[in-house]
Amino acid sequence: MWRNTKDRELRDRAAEVIPGGMYGHQSTAMMPEGFPQFFTGAKGTRITDADGNEYIDYMCAYGPNLLGYQQPDVMRAVAEQQGRIDASTGPSPLIVDLAEAMVGMISHADWAMFCKNGADATMMALMIARAYRDKRKVLVARNAYHGSMPWNTPRPAGVVAEDRAHLIYFDYNDTQSLADAAKQAGDDLAGIFAAPFRHDTFADQSLPDAEYARTARRIADEYDALLIVDDVRAGLRLCRDCSWETVGVRPDLSAWGKVLGNGQPISALVGNNRARAAASRIFVTGSFWFAAVPMAAAIETLRIVRESDYLERLTAIGEQFRAGLAAQAVEFGFGLRQTGPAATPMVLFEDDPDFRLGYGFCREAMTRGVYMSPYHNMFMNAAMTETDVAQTLEATGAAFEAIKKSRASLKPSPVLAALMEA
Amino acid sequence: MWRNTKDRELRDRAAEVIPGGMYGHQSTAMMPEGFPQFFTGAKGTRITDADGNEYIDYMCAYGPNLLGYQQPDVMRAVAEQQGRIDASTGPSPLIVDLAEAMVGMISHADWAMFCKNGADATMMALMIARAYRDKRKVLVARNAYHGSMPWNTPRPAGVVAEDRAHLIYFDYNDTQSLADAAKQAGDDLAGIFAAPFRHDTFADQSLPDAEYARTARRIADEYDALLIVDDVRAGLRLCRDCSWETVGVRPDLSAWGKVLGNGQPISALVGNNRARAAASRIFVTGSFWFAAVPMAAAIETLRIVRESDYLERLTAIGEQFRAGLAAQAVEFGFGLRQTGPAATPMVLFEDDPDFRLGYGFCREAMTRGVYMSPYHNMFMNAAMTETDVAQTLEATGAAFEAIKKSRASLKPSPVLAALMEA
Repeated sequence: MWRNTKDRELRDRAAEVIPGGMYGHQSTAMMPEGFPQFFTGAKGTRITDADGNEYIDYMCAYGPNLLGYQQPDVMRAVAEQQGRIDASTGPSPLIVDLAEAMVGMISHADWAMFCKNGADATMMALMIARAYRDKRKVLVARNAYHGSMPWNTPRPAGVVAEDRAHLIYFDYNDTQSLADAAKQAGDDLAGIFAAPFRHDTFADQSLPDAEYARTARRIADEYDALLIVDDVRAGLRLCRDCSWETVGVRPDLSAWGKVLGNGQPISALVGNNRARAAASRIFVTGSFWFAAVPMAAAIETLRIVRESDYLERLTAIGEQFRAGLAAQAVEFGFGLRQTGPAATPMVLFEDDPDFRLGYGFCREAMTRGVYMSPYHNMFMNAAMTETDVAQTLEATGAAFEAIKKSRASLKPSPVLAALMEA
Repeated sequence: MWRNTKDRELRDRAAEVIPGGMYGHQSTAMMPEGFPQFFTGAKGTRITDADGNEYIDYMCAYGPNLLGYQQPDVMRAVAEQQGRIDASTGPSPLIVDLAEAMVGMISHADWAMFCKNGADATMMALMIARAYRDKRKVLVARNAYHGSMPWNTPRPAGVVAEDRAHLIYFDYNDTQSLADAAKQAGDDLAGIFAAPFRHDTFADQSLPDAEYARTARRIADEYDALLIVDDVRAGLRLCRDCSWETVGVRPDLSAWGKVLGNGQPISALVGNNRARAAASRIFVTGSFWFAAVPMAAAIETLRIVRESDYLERLTAIGEQFRAGLAAQAVEFGFGLRQTGPAATPMVLFEDDPDFRLGYGFCREAMTRGVYMSPYHNMFMNAAMTETDVAQTLEATGAAFEAIKKSRASLKPSPVLAALMEA
């Protein structure tokens, strides 16, 4: 029996000592009512909330969980390294091993730098693009998320106009819009940020059009600017290389994070020799950027990526999940839009402008042990099995049935409604 | 017998796959010749380099090592938490426990937010100051380091003028300079960044003048702006509270990092109720900000901070170290300037404009098993004992003797000389 007594008690305490009760992407403020805010366990494919409810987790820590929580090989590498050295007065030799591993796997990469947040990597990309030829303008797809620094955070509070003075926005997958933006930048064009595919919240996903990707490459070359792929969210879920290898286009820089250490805190920027001198000129650093333990985790994660069929498995499971949901939607008379890669599924309801169907559906699935998001792309992991999908579909089938019955009385999320009005 | 064969081999490999061979504050580019770049062990007070040379480490990972590397209580908390949950789809209850612990210990704090880099915390402070009354200007002490984001990184590459458009610089400890800067900002003054004490590289440290600190507080109040203390570097080494409690001045916000989890990756911004609404309006987040393991480490570190005499011990050891060096300097005929708190000692030579004495001295100490910096403040940790200091002074005595002999032939560091010319 699902319950949330302890979660509510924790929320009351959190409201006293954390602004707004919680912050950032893991705040449940925008999630359907009753979604748990606090978790006490994560193993394999499952998370357990503070009240002891267990869920099959389709958010995978918003990405990092690639191989299953507490994957034994990765955790063994972590424990062994912890007994040697972690954060210290200098890096360990693992930073060289890991840089070599990434250069060996990522086709466009000749070098790597490591950091903690995905936003550290995108910030470094921004700085390197500007340092490259001492130019300033950077093209960014409208609404694309590249981290919560002032230059890109989706909310205006605390941001000044100058933080975005040299950004020019274009529409994703629109070659004309991209070309126009480049023309506007002219001889001040420093770089082009390209999401590997469009994965904005509350919107269908779009895979990159190959012609659009090639245009981005051509414009970067013509203007002597750097092409950047932000692979923080999608990296290693589409292929064992930079995600734009799937469309045959190589960037100068790509930003990595989330999955790199299967949940251990590490992110990276990799680049080609064209960008190397600029990369060596910027000064970027962080207290924990050289810590050895997350690098040991990353080296082991990348070994598994190279040597196992993790990608084929999580893709196949993603396709089963998608097909099962599609069949259930038909059965219960709902239209679903399932977009983007099967490894990072986005599930939105047709004829659901205020998302009340999606919210109702996810809430019903949640109380039945399946954790899904009604507005953010989800993530598959390689520990998921056919049994997990079967158990998931049992819950989602019941969820479809429940919202079919309650459809007339479903209401939009008040938080979301307020946000959409603003 | 000190040797560096393996370090040099690793440097050769690193030069291929890491821009400039290494980056950030842990690059040895500016250190004396031969300083090891790579380390394979860190335990208690000691670090071991890739060639097996062991050092008493006076850099303490540039701060994080407060209680000794691999402190057993902290590592037990880490191991236990790793078996439950770390980075996942939501925070664990530990985020509430840790926020309560910080609010309970830091006098000015009513709330806390957690992140990864010290620069995340200072960036959040900058954004909250601007969100507070929708004003823009921020006062920053000239040459003060608050992280390597474009608004503050010490090198110009990759930075555009707009990144610093609304910063106004003043001289540390100079109340007139601070008042002039505030007047310049006028009714657009959002915040004042105050280092807890002046700890710029290559310069003597200065403790804050109480009158200067009170003036900063008064100006913030008069202009309805937020006063920020950046305690990332000094936090918990001066007192068990915000460092400005030592001068009786309470900021609105303080930034924490480094020591918080005794080396586990976590930083924090804490604030008072005046700043709470603004803090809840900004959108800031990171993939690993809600991870539970570093929070478990921080909770245990703070417990030790509250319940042990760690602070008195590391301060006493710092004073012994300082007194021993001072006596040796006199003995061997050198003038030393030892400035700032004993817990974060800065050691510079008199009559050493190009730092050749300091570099020579640190190199001699290093090859004798003591790792010191000739240009950056050092850090004491609570695992250090009188025996460590005695062993240190044996090495430094020999180092003074060696540079007394070689004084005429010492040369300035070519990297540093190039930097000072630029």
